[in-house]
Amino acid sequence: MSVTAAPGFVAAGCHVGVKRKRRDLAILATDDGRPVAAAGVFTTNKFVAPPVVHSRGLLEANGGRASAVVVNSGNANAGTGDRGLADAKAMGKMTARAIGCDPRDVLVCSTGVIGLPLPMEKILPGIDRLATHLSRGGHGDAASAILTTDHVPKEGVVHGAGYTLGGMAKGCGMIAPNMATMLAFLTTDAEVDSPSLQSILREAAAETFNTLNVDGATSTNDTVFLLANGRAGKPRLDDFAAAVRELCMDLTLQMARDAEGVTKVVRLTVSGAASDAEARACAHAIAENNLVKCSWFGADPYWGRILAAAGSAGVAFEADRSFVAYGGIAVAKGGVEVAHDGAAVLAHMKQGEVEIECGLGAGSASARVIGIDLGPGYIKENIVTS
Amino acid sequence: MSVTAAPGFVAAGCHVGVKRKRRDLAILATDDGRPVAAAGVFTTNKFVAPPVVHSRGLLEANGGRASAVVVNSGNANAGTGDRGLADAKAMGKMTARAIGCDPRDVLVCSTGVIGLPLPMEKILPGIDRLATHLSRGGHGDAASAILTTDHVPKEGVVHGAGYTLGGMAKGCGMIAPNMATMLAFLTTDAEVDSPSLQSILREAAAETFNTLNVDGATSTNDTVFLLANGRAGKPRLDDFAAAVRELCMDLTLQMARDAEGVTKVVRLTVSGAASDAEARACAHAIAENNLVKCSWFGADPYWGRILAAAGSAGVAFEADRSFVAYGGIAVAKGGVEVAHDGAAVLAHMKQGEVEIECGLGAGSASARVIGIDLGPGYIKENIVTS
Repeated sequence: MSVTAAPGFVAAGCHVGVKRKRRDLAILATDDGRPVAAAGVFTTNKFVAPPVVHSRGLLEANGGRASAVVVNSGNANAGTGDRGLADAKAMGKMTARAIGCDPRDVLVCSTGVIGLPLPMEKILPGIDRLATHLSRGGHGDAASAILTTDHVPKEGVVHGAGYTLGGMAKGCGMIAPNMATMLAFLTTDAEVDSPSLQSILREAAAETFNTLNVDGATSTNDTVFLLANGRAGKPRLDDFAAAVRELCMDLTLQMARDAEGVTKVVRLTVSGAASDAEARACAHAIAENNLVKCSWFGADPYWGRILAAAGSAGVAFEADRSFVAYGGIAVAKGGVEVAHDGAAVLAHMKQGEVEIECGLGAGSASARVIGIDLGPGYIKENIVTS
Repeated sequence: MSVTAAPGFVAAGCHVGVKRKRRDLAILATDDGRPVAAAGVFTTNKFVAPPVVHSRGLLEANGGRASAVVVNSGNANAGTGDRGLADAKAMGKMTARAIGCDPRDVLVCSTGVIGLPLPMEKILPGIDRLATHLSRGGHGDAASAILTTDHVPKEGVVHGAGYTLGGMAKGCGMIAPNMATMLAFLTTDAEVDSPSLQSILREAAAETFNTLNVDGATSTNDTVFLLANGRAGKPRLDDFAAAVRELCMDLTLQMARDAEGVTKVVRLTVSGAASDAEARACAHAIAENNLVKCSWFGADPYWGRILAAAGSAGVAFEADRSFVAYGGIAVAKGGVEVAHDGAAVLAHMKQGEVEIECGLGAGSASARVIGIDLGPGYIKENIVTS
């Protein structure tokens, strides 16, 4: 059931013609149209898209609540200026009218190509029609309608102590730290006040979505929403936070495995850093380094490139105390290669998901990121899209 | 004549077996073995290779002078620890003995694969033999012997007011700001004291080599040397600095045009920045953005990706006052597309060298970098090299 797994939520998705053939419009709503507690985390990109401006403003103004989320794919409604903002508002207004709620309680998202106006003549009547199809069984259509270059829908459910948490997500390129071209929508029947919901979502996003680094690019549209209708009563907040984190990580890994051109998902740990911030910065620098990513594509345990990336990341680094390990097998220590089981390392590197650790020898802080390799598939998917 | 164009310098290059077939050892020296003023600029990578440690130490100890430079390609002598440092010293010592100078006046460079010990049994006798072939006509052999994945040698000469400045360089991958896998060797008969030589070289490198961004990767071995024997007397320092800058830019463009997998060289200007540092940071962020680089490969004037890269560069950015121009033709202003001659823009983007400007709308500072596109060729050249 994913995003409608918690009682009280309905969804629908259909094709209205933003894209040529595939589904491109989704609505997620409460089953009675009444607003529930809502939290949002948005892109940090300063070239921010109008729907993000609109939705962020709504949540700030209404103190964190929502009745529905309307999403189109195929067009990001970014780089569209005042007209784009008016279009985002019109999408919310039409959704509110169709399901009978306050337009100030309808969040709006768009994802797709930057720089073209939305085809409102297709979207507005589409919203009107789609609202009549909202149901608990509509989650699959909704999950497919929010996709862009994704190959598969991303859905997940976590069952907490007395409550349910479900979600769907999209994203497979332009994904870097800080929410890049990714959307995720989570719902729960747990009862959590808006401020707590917001801080739990922000923290979970930092530990999951923001550790995924597909290409170092940060999108203009990224958004994560969490809606809580309270029907199941109050959960223990630490238990609930863990459930949110678990679902977000599930969706994060689904995005990584579906990344543009991916052949390998890398769980990279940087340890021995002077601070948490330096550990994170270094981990992202390694995960974004094209030479490192090409060697991952080639299943090549080229530790020299890992250390070269770490050494130029602008963080404290002591080559004499550094190390690099693949699948738990140390290949280099103190900046030089050490005797190791080369066949075992190679076998590990040939898997679809690999573990790499780089020790900086400068302290005791560590960070983990999820990276992917760089192969011809990524380029093929990104040459011309406009 | 390139690196031997100024009277008083000789060079030679040959194959000794570090690489399978191509030339891999070069010597550049003064024609009488006597030391001359020398300056060096080195990689900022903290995972620094032993030859850099050795050469940097020599110039610090001897106040900036050199009789010769010995260079091998095919093996970076990086990630080789104490043994690597001993090998670098041994290369210098053998060179000194062969040409009859002080070993403290022999600079040493290596470039190639990281993590393997140098085959000293091939290199040391090779140095001994090669020194007997030093001549002014040997510049071409030397220029080809320092190459790694380069496709063509890079040589250049600038004639100043009464003096000559020549040079050779290598580098086509792992090139980012701050000297990444690139070597350049310049010589002149101008008379310039070591401290002036050092500051002129540092400034020229910042304005030329360090504006080239092939892949955001910073190497462990990058080095630029400038040797000045003074035979032509003292130049005007501003004139000399301009000549050094001119030669460095010539070599920089030769490297860009030969970059791994390159099909397009992009001269990118970021203007309207709040400070010079922010202009530079933003320009490099755009030039390193894989989505932007893929669109360049596709000759696609996808201005949305440029602004999305600028907006996430961590610098002041005002979308409402921003603009993007291709070949001087504004395509987007204020964050939205504006009417423009699409055919003219496309024709410009299909050229081998294109001009792009991105205005941040946040101030009056600007910076220029030289970037390249990202196509399948880059990946093909970087999958497995160890």
